[in-house]
Amino acid sequence: MRDAYHEELDAIGDSLVEMARLVGSAMGRATTALLDADLALAEGVIAADEKVNELHHDLENRAIDLLARQQPVATDLRIVVTSLRMSADLERCGDLARHVAKVARMRYPDTAVPSDLHSTVLEMGQLAQRLVAKAGLVIATKDVDKALEMEQDDDAIDTLHRELLSHLIDERWHHGIETAVDITLVGRYYERFADHAVSVAKRVVYLVTGEHVAEFVAATEAAEAAPVD
Amino acid sequence: MRDAYHEELDAIGDSLVEMARLVGSAMGRATTALLDADLALAEGVIAADEKVNELHHDLENRAIDLLARQQPVATDLRIVVTSLRMSADLERCGDLARHVAKVARMRYPDTAVPSDLHSTVLEMGQLAQRLVAKAGLVIATKDVDKALEMEQDDDAIDTLHRELLSHLIDERWHHGIETAVDITLVGRYYERFADHAVSVAKRVVYLVTGEHVAEFVAATEAAEAAPVD
Repeated sequence: MRDAYHEELDAIGDSLVEMARLVGSAMGRATTALLDADLALAEGVIAADEKVNELHHDLENRAIDLLARQQPVATDLRIVVTSLRMSADLERCGDLARHVAKVARMRYPDTAVPSDLHSTVLEMGQLAQRLVAKAGLVIATKDVDKALEMEQDDDAIDTLHRELLSHLIDERWHHGIETAVDITLVGRYYERFADHAVSVAKRVVYLVTGEHVAEFVAATEAAEAAPVD
Repeated sequence: MRDAYHEELDAIGDSLVEMARLVGSAMGRATTALLDADLALAEGVIAADEKVNELHHDLENRAIDLLARQQPVATDLRIVVTSLRMSADLERCGDLARHVAKVARMRYPDTAVPSDLHSTVLEMGQLAQRLVAKAGLVIATKDVDKALEMEQDDDAIDTLHRELLSHLIDERWHHGIETAVDITLVGRYYERFADHAVSVAKRVVYLVTGEHVAEFVAATEAAEAAPVD
């Protein structure tokens, strides 16, 4: 009975990894659709988000069912509750990829991104995709060090986001207000996507160590700083 | 023992109502700070968000503790899991009120909102505040009809949001890009705040009826449309 239970728990983990893969792919394709003004690709991303939502609802139902039938305590309970939150984060990542694709669709056949911002937007899209791929890996491997690395990756996306906004308010900006509005929103979508990916990784740290990231880092630093005599 | 349990469950409900009250007040004050360029008020909103975060973490810990100790099933399990989600929604509302306050602080001593947009922003802020107040009432009273009304309120905020964006892309816009960026972000914050408030109310519908809103509405409509012979 306990074995079937742990199989179900593993299956929930597998679903989270699959969701991370799907939303990463969606954000990659949404970014391409946005930069290339590729309508078919944008439509594909928008339609495919349904699959992520289904996985999310299915995972929720399985997790609640598991709580009811198996009444886990301690670590097992923490895994199930945390999985629910990670699923909600990843579902939201899917929404944000869809939002980027919708901007691409709205501006088609034009591209929403002026050519001088292409590289920054591309970099944000790629970094967002890498972050959620890393989050998927962290779920699969429970690698706390990799999870903690993601804070820096998130700083990198914040830097790109500030760079993007600085273009907008530069007096040489000549792409008009509509484009500024699009870029403001798109920048926000990437930033939120990255936040959710980092949040997933932080939740794995909590799962593994039983401590929230700030506490864990503080405890580790205190241990390292302690006199060794 | 069961009585103490239901008291704890009630206390979780009370905390959610308190969180709704706090974030509603925060959004009201953030809107005033934004429109009046009131730095002290903005700082107050930013500092007060800590209290909401504390309530959220405290509620999470109590809910998980309850799951571990009491191992609820069926409706009781659904209440605890749903409370965790509502708490996450309300915590996010607090973040969004803080974001609005930060825009006010960033532009001080100027106001981020041009005078011709004051009334639209004020209306969005008030509606957002009313939505979360209604969500609090729905949590306290489990009033499904009121919860379902909130879909229309959410449509109203979407309409205001579109109106706000239409000002930005109007060719008569003369407030520059920086203001357009601020307004785009602020509009998005109100919209997301309202989404989370509606989400809270929808979760109450699920709690009371055991069905998600779409299913519940469809089932009700089917029952009403059934021939009465």
